[in-house]
Amino acid sequence: MTNHGGDIYGFMVKRGLDQGSVIDFSASVNPLGTSGNVVREIKKNIKNIVHYPDIHATRLTDKVAVALGVKAKSIVCGNGSTELIYLIPRLMGFRRVLIPQPTFSDYERACRIACPECTITDYMLELRKNFDIEPGDILGKILNTKPDAVFLCNPNNPTGRLIKREALLDIAAQTKKQRIYLVVDESFIDFCPGESVAGNVQKNPYLIVLRSMTKFYALAGLRLGYGIFPLNIAGMLKELKEPWSVNTLAQIAGMAALGEDIYNERTIKIINKQKKALEKGLQRLGIDYIPSHANYYLLHTPKAGKIAEGLAQRGIVVRGCSNFKGLDHRYLRIAVKSQKENELLLKHMEECIE
Amino acid sequence: MTNHGGDIYGFMVKRGLDQGSVIDFSASVNPLGTSGNVVREIKKNIKNIVHYPDIHATRLTDKVAVALGVKAKSIVCGNGSTELIYLIPRLMGFRRVLIPQPTFSDYERACRIACPECTITDYMLELRKNFDIEPGDILGKILNTKPDAVFLCNPNNPTGRLIKREALLDIAAQTKKQRIYLVVDESFIDFCPGESVAGNVQKNPYLIVLRSMTKFYALAGLRLGYGIFPLNIAGMLKELKEPWSVNTLAQIAGMAALGEDIYNERTIKIINKQKKALEKGLQRLGIDYIPSHANYYLLHTPKAGKIAEGLAQRGIVVRGCSNFKGLDHRYLRIAVKSQKENELLLKHMEECIE
Repeated sequence: MTNHGGDIYGFMVKRGLDQGSVIDFSASVNPLGTSGNVVREIKKNIKNIVHYPDIHATRLTDKVAVALGVKAKSIVCGNGSTELIYLIPRLMGFRRVLIPQPTFSDYERACRIACPECTITDYMLELRKNFDIEPGDILGKILNTKPDAVFLCNPNNPTGRLIKREALLDIAAQTKKQRIYLVVDESFIDFCPGESVAGNVQKNPYLIVLRSMTKFYALAGLRLGYGIFPLNIAGMLKELKEPWSVNTLAQIAGMAALGEDIYNERTIKIINKQKKALEKGLQRLGIDYIPSHANYYLLHTPKAGKIAEGLAQRGIVVRGCSNFKGLDHRYLRIAVKSQKENELLLKHMEECIE
Repeated sequence: MTNHGGDIYGFMVKRGLDQGSVIDFSASVNPLGTSGNVVREIKKNIKNIVHYPDIHATRLTDKVAVALGVKAKSIVCGNGSTELIYLIPRLMGFRRVLIPQPTFSDYERACRIACPECTITDYMLELRKNFDIEPGDILGKILNTKPDAVFLCNPNNPTGRLIKREALLDIAAQTKKQRIYLVVDESFIDFCPGESVAGNVQKNPYLIVLRSMTKFYALAGLRLGYGIFPLNIAGMLKELKEPWSVNTLAQIAGMAALGEDIYNERTIKIINKQKKALEKGLQRLGIDYIPSHANYYLLHTPKAGKIAEGLAQRGIVVRGCSNFKGLDHRYLRIAVKSQKENELLLKHMEECIE
């Protein structure tokens, strides 16, 4: 079992707290919460949990396809994007993989579980470059190591750094030429409008794009993700996949969420506003952070341990980052939450470092 | 993708129907529907889907452990028992497997996906014996073929036949002696009170018991199952498992369902009453059925195709069984539903065969 943020249940048990008294900055979920319309649709469909889920998630898949302007046949829905992260290396049998670090730890775990003798090369990102992935650098590393696949999280978790669309398409063109699979995890891309490369999968048989609906749409507990795959891979994945992995309420919630234009706009607006305020607050406290394109910040401070422990005592959970490759006990990740919660976080942080 | 019952979505699309106008006899789910208390708990907890699920399903696991009188550490919860059916052969690397047929097709699919070179031996059950598994026969087959594992569905799907507890424990004692894993899928055992062997796992390091909460508790759309494993296997399964596979609402529903004593009693009573009425009706129509210990019947009639098509035209789905090994187009499986629905089924069946 890997270590992740969002384990508020473990936190609650350890600290003897109940859920109402915990503020979770460790999982990066939309602070608006699940949209009212999505909640209504879930409630309306509880009666349908007596039936098995649509095994093909047909209506959801069709709706995603229309929203992205891609073929429905290229889409596979999953029990969170996590299910797909684990299925891909099992299907593809990758034996050499390149992964920029620090990043979401499950790419490496999934590759190792699928193929224990897999050679995984870390491409270490550097603090002095804000952990940015520079296209020239990673292409050099790719040409050097000749992997079967590269996993890129964009924007990257936990750094929040984005490879701009045009630069990523340049990388994808090169990996295509080399017949190297490029798996782009766009779990947080909804926070970066216009930056997705999902529409490019149909032109590139070596490009796979994963999307999550759990963060932007605040559906973490229901589990919902999908991938856009070259058609041959999508077909084989469906042959490999377990039946009924995406539950009925997740399918319903996903369909409702895809129509949420006003919620989307409000989210982007609020997140951007709160990010400015949080940055100002962190600057005031003298806490270094990596400028972020997503709804979370990677903090870098020698007081990280003190802050995390102090906050925990106050019922606030942040994500310690010492189990990310390339990071250590000096790093924390915090989500961007509501104004009230962010202010509370800054206030308590200040007390912790006094 | 395998073929299953309960694909009402595919049926609806094919027939141009909506959900309200379809009666589903193809999935064997409790006709009482999800219990009111469980629905209330789900509604109350929709707000919590913004959080990731408890990755360890700790509270649910503890509650299952208490209910079964087993160690919490021996339990692994799954996204339906299906997740566990697929995880077990991946973990154990079975290369020789014995499976009685006809049975649930995913044991074979899971073994083949986990290990394409796996040798799967079918132990063909016979209509003239009501498809019963006779302990002497299967033990002979086990000694002959020396498999790594045997999968037994008890009561068996789609036949509804039960191996009584004492006989199953005799088989388990023999497989233990031979160091052969016995995987008992008790997905429908709640319909057979007192027959589970879940409590015997702790005394038998070669016994694995799978349980489903989707049928008896009518949670098919939410997905929830669990397994009781020898401790070493439970530990390794957790290392192999994907994070967050069991969604928050499934965990909540499972916890609420485990306290439903009145619902349980009512279910057993209603199912038994309706089974008697259904049997009488089938006898009246001259349709042969296999006497069932579960909440479904395997029908055997040369008119099966005509009945299934006629019912489909009337918006009623039954499970054609020609894709079960050892069965053919003369077999249908029907669920035991409410009195009203069962009477409707019998009435329409009568029209179909006139």
